Formats: sequence, C-alpha cells, structure tokens
Amino acid sequence: MKVLIIGAAGMVGRKLAERLAKDGTLAGKQIASMTLYDVVPPEVPEAKFATDALTGDLPAACEAEKLVAGRPDVIFHLAAIVSGEAELDFDKGYRINLDGTRHLFDAVRAAQYCPRVVFTSSIAVFGAPYPEAIYDEFHTTPLTSYGTQKAIGELLLSDLTRRDILDGVAIRLPTICVRPGKPNKAASGFFSNIIREPLAGQEAILPVSEEVRHWHASPRSAVGFLIRAAEIDGAAIGPRRALTLPGVSVTVGEQIAALRNVAGDTVAARIKREPDQLIIDMVGGWPQNFNAARAIDLGFKAESTFEEIIQAHIEDELDGRIA
Amino acid sequence: MKVLIIGAAGMVGRKLAERLAKDGTLAGKQIASMTLYDVVPPEVPEAKFATDALTGDLPAACEAEKLVAGRPDVIFHLAAIVSGEAELDFDKGYRINLDGTRHLFDAVRAAQYCPRVVFTSSIAVFGAPYPEAIYDEFHTTPLTSYGTQKAIGELLLSDLTRRDILDGVAIRLPTICVRPGKPNKAASGFFSNIIREPLAGQEAILPVSEEVRHWHASPRSAVGFLIRAAEIDGAAIGPRRALTLPGVSVTVGEQIAALRNVAGDTVAARIKREPDQLIIDMVGGWPQNFNAARAIDLGFKAESTFEEIIQAHIEDELDGRIA
Repeated sequence: MKVLIIGAAGMVGRKLAERLAKDGTLAGKQIASMTLYDVVPPEVPEAKFATDALTGDLPAACEAEKLVAGRPDVIFHLAAIVSGEAELDFDKGYRINLDGTRHLFDAVRAAQYCPRVVFTSSIAVFGAPYPEAIYDEFHTTPLTSYGTQKAIGELLLSDLTRRDILDGVAIRLPTICVRPGKPNKAASGFFSNIIREPLAGQEAILPVSEEVRHWHASPRSAVGFLIRAAEIDGAAIGPRRALTLPGVSVTVGEQIAALRNVAGDTVAARIKREPDQLIIDMVGGWPQNFNAARAIDLGFKAESTFEEIIQAHIEDELDGRIA
Repeated sequence: MKVLIIGAAGMVGRKLAERLAKDGTLAGKQIASMTLYDVVPPEVPEAKFATDALTGDLPAACEAEKLVAGRPDVIFHLAAIVSGEAELDFDKGYRINLDGTRHLFDAVRAAQYCPRVVFTSSIAVFGAPYPEAIYDEFHTTPLTSYGTQKAIGELLLSDLTRRDILDGVAIRLPTICVRPGKPNKAASGFFSNIIREPLAGQEAILPVSEEVRHWHASPRSAVGFLIRAAEIDGAAIGPRRALTLPGVSVTVGEQIAALRNVAGDTVAARIKREPDQLIIDMVGGWPQNFNAARAIDLGFKAESTFEEIIQAHIEDELDGRIA
C-alpha cells in the first residue's frame, strides 16, 4: 500500500500523515511508503515505513505526472487555495483549485491505473438560501469561487470514477473546529478562537451574535473521515461520489454553553463580544445545518455534541490540561 | 446591439439566426450586426443588418479572443460535442465542451466588459435516480461526460456572473422534438423519428416500449427560450443562473396518441415496433419529468401538449402539409 498526500503541510494533512505513521496500515493493508507533497515543505512524522517529503507547484507541467509515477494506491488530494484567498485572487484560485485538480486527474488517467482518490471538498459548494437542514439531494450553487472550484472537482471526480479512470471519493468537510494554532483572520476563525483561546488562558473576540448557527467537526473527525473515505468500498457509494459528511450543528451560544460545561465559568468569561458587521454579513450566507444521511449510512462518524469536540481538542492539543 | 452565435451551424443555432434576421431586434434593441460561428460554415440568413459567418476551433489559441474582440452585447454559446460523441471521445468532449467554454469566458474577462452570455446546458446534468418530477433544487449528478461538462459550464457561468465578469444565463433545454432532417443514430433520435417520418409518409422504428416517459419542447420553443434568456433582467434571476426550462412530459404512447389526434390513424400506423435492448437500457436512465417552476415564473414558455409540438413541426417544417 503506497500513499500520497497532496497538501500534506496543511493542518489536516499533517494530522493525517501523523495518524497513518502511527497506524502503519490503511484500508486493512500495511503501508509500504508514504509521499508527502505541498507547496511548502511538509513535516515528516516518524514512521516504520519509507516516508518522503516533496515540494512543488501542482498545476505546473509534469508535476502531477511525477507524483503519480510511483503509482500510489491511495491519493489524498487536500491541496487548495482557501476560500478567502481564492476570492481575492481569481487566477490563483482557479489555477490551483481547478487546474491543479484536473492535472492530477489527467496524470492518473495517463498512468492507466485506477487508484482510490480522496478529494476534500467543502460545504462551500452550497449557497443560500438553504432548507432547514441541507439534504443529500440539494443542489450545489456556490456563492464563492472556492466553492465553485470544489463543486467542479466533485463533478470531474464522479465522471472519471464512472469511466474507471480513477476510484474517487469527494468528502464535503464541515468547518473544522477547534483549529489548533494561532488565531487567524479567516472570517470563520472565530468559531475556533472562542474555544481555543479561553482554554489557553487567553481572551477571544466574538464578532457575531450568539444566534449564529453553523456546522462543525473536530480535526480528529476530519482525519477519521479521510481514512474512512480511503477504505470504503466504492460500489457501496455508487456513482454519486460526493458526500456531505456528518457534523454538529450548534449556535455560537451553544458553543459557549458547551465550553462552560467542559471548562467552567472562568474560562467561558474570557470571550469578549465585539460585533463586526463585515463578518456578520458574510456568516449570514453560510450553511447552518445538514442531514448527512448517506455518509452516516456509509460509516462516516463525527462527534454528536459540541462538548465532545471541545474534549477532542483538550486531549489532542492540550495534553488534557485547561489553563 | 451586436449578436454573436457560437455553434450557429447546428439545428437550433440556424433557427435562432433565421429568427433574429427576421425580427431585426433582440431584447428591445435594433440588431446592428450578427456574427455566426461554427466549426463548419454556418448558413447566413437574409437580414437587414450586417451578418458574417466565421469558421474555427473554439478552444484553439486566440480563437475566443478574436470572437469577443468586437464586443458583442449578447453571446449565444450553443457549441458542443453531443452526448454520444463526448462519451466515445473523452478528449474531444472535454476539449470542446469544457475548455472551449472556459476559453470563451476567459476571453470575455480579458475584454473587460460584461455581455449577456446565454449558454445552452441540458437536462443531462441530472442523473438517475430521480424524484417523480425533478425540481429546481435537485442536485446535478450527471451520468455522462457531456452532462458533466455542461454542469461545469453552469458553475463557471454562475461564478463569473457573481463576479461581474459576464452576465450569464444557462438554460437546460428539454429534448428538442420534433427534430427536422433525416433520422439519425442518436439514442434519443426515435422520439423525433416516430413523429417526423410518419408525417412525411415514411415508416419509423420505435425501439422502446410505449411506457417510456420523457421531456420535450419544439425547436420553435428552443428559439423562444434563447431569446427570452437574452432579454431577461439578470437581477430577476439572482445568483443561481442555471434554469431548468419548461417542457411537455409524455410517454411514447402519448406521443403516438397525439400523432393520431393530429394526423389520423394511417399516419400513426407507420410506426413499427422493433425493441432494441441497448436503447432501452440507455433511455431507462433518462429524466422523465420536471417541475420547472423558476423558469416559468421568469417567463419561459413551452408547449403545453404534445399535439402543439406536432403542430409546430407541421407549420414550421412541412408548410402545413401532411403526407
């Protein structure tokens, strides 16, 4: 079993590589080698199998061919220009998120074998207005270029799967929360900031009202989703290869209540309300809730409460300690 | 008002050009010039405005730039490799249907103006299983490469519209029936053949059962859809720029009953039943019925009975005469 992770320097890619290094197996098979690829050098975890790290520019000529030359059995394609940047830089977003993905798929086709390709899509493929809970048959009408590029990637992946060029699974990740690391300026950052910073003894800014509802899963669940997507029998999925994954739908008020339940009043009191109209307006168009029936039937598992999401963060990032 | 028709040599493109030549106006404005473009030389109808015909290969370098250089106010993009051929020839289908469309949109972006772009999509963006009537929010999960390429075109068009790069309307045409001309080998050809040939005094082969249900509109309606898509206020459509158009949902048995109503028993008796398992299997996965509520609200009009579709054919193609 040879594994390739494209986008291995990102938060989820790094955690996936660590988990595979620890497990030593994927889809019931021993991992023989793992290649980590990104535009910046990925960290290489300690592993009992051969692991190498490469850097490069995915849509550049021959780059995807080089990655596929070793005929990896499972390709995780996580690389993307994120939502905000793809919106600001039209050419860069289309070049990496659309052309890069297409080059990868073309390279697999040229190599004439049929690997499992796990493609991280996003709930950004959906655009308001939404039903109360977005169901599996709801259409994809993205309101960002990033969401458009992900929806196109899903369509290509399903078509190439149908033609036996590759064996694809596209997974629409919930917003990943609690993101480890520093607070960032992403519009969605506050969902993590208001949990992570108070737990570390720091103040956090809440720029929206407590009524805002959103869809979350932990980084630990994200890694679990990727592994499930790599091992699942393609025939069980059928031709509709894009799956909306399970998550936890909570309001910001429920997030804060969960933080209080897990860590107490002192920690929860570290959240400061500072409304920001720009963020309020953006978040107003985001999905709030899903019915991820297909993915749940196919064995994808997320947390069932926001308390569990906080506990996962405390265990995985804070060694069990709250400040 | 300058008009460009890409794919002007096809059946619908030719009829659109004739209609615009006759009307002399589009979207309430005098047409000053019309450019007809296709891979083979388009017929040039007699018109009171300047009309020229060009041939070329849309995805070739600089081709789209050349077409857009005259800054047409309305661009009809009808050019496509059809379903069967796009399925047989992977590269050709993606090159024309995806790359060609993208080059056109890129050329519009480079020209830095915001024309109305009418893009003919297809009900092939949908894939079985379906609800009893496909509704406007139903997802696009195509089961052909052609349908995939059309769905991608819709996504690009909506994103570029949102970004004010162009002002797009994508219309998902029903199966066009009755197609004029000779019987062809397209799997869907029999829907037209069983009407057109008997009306012309010829036998026609019916390869499927009379229970098969499908979704139709006349060539006359197709032209009407294109003109409506060119004139409609974009703000009334909103950001979801792909519209499923109205049509008539009938079984083959109902098609034959309508033929009998319009033209009598002798004509209807010219249909011979010769089941063809290959066609039966293909047609089994096709859409049967739609609820095109949005497009109807937006003023798109189709026939309301199959008799009207037959009458349109008799008037427009047979000068009112039945053999």
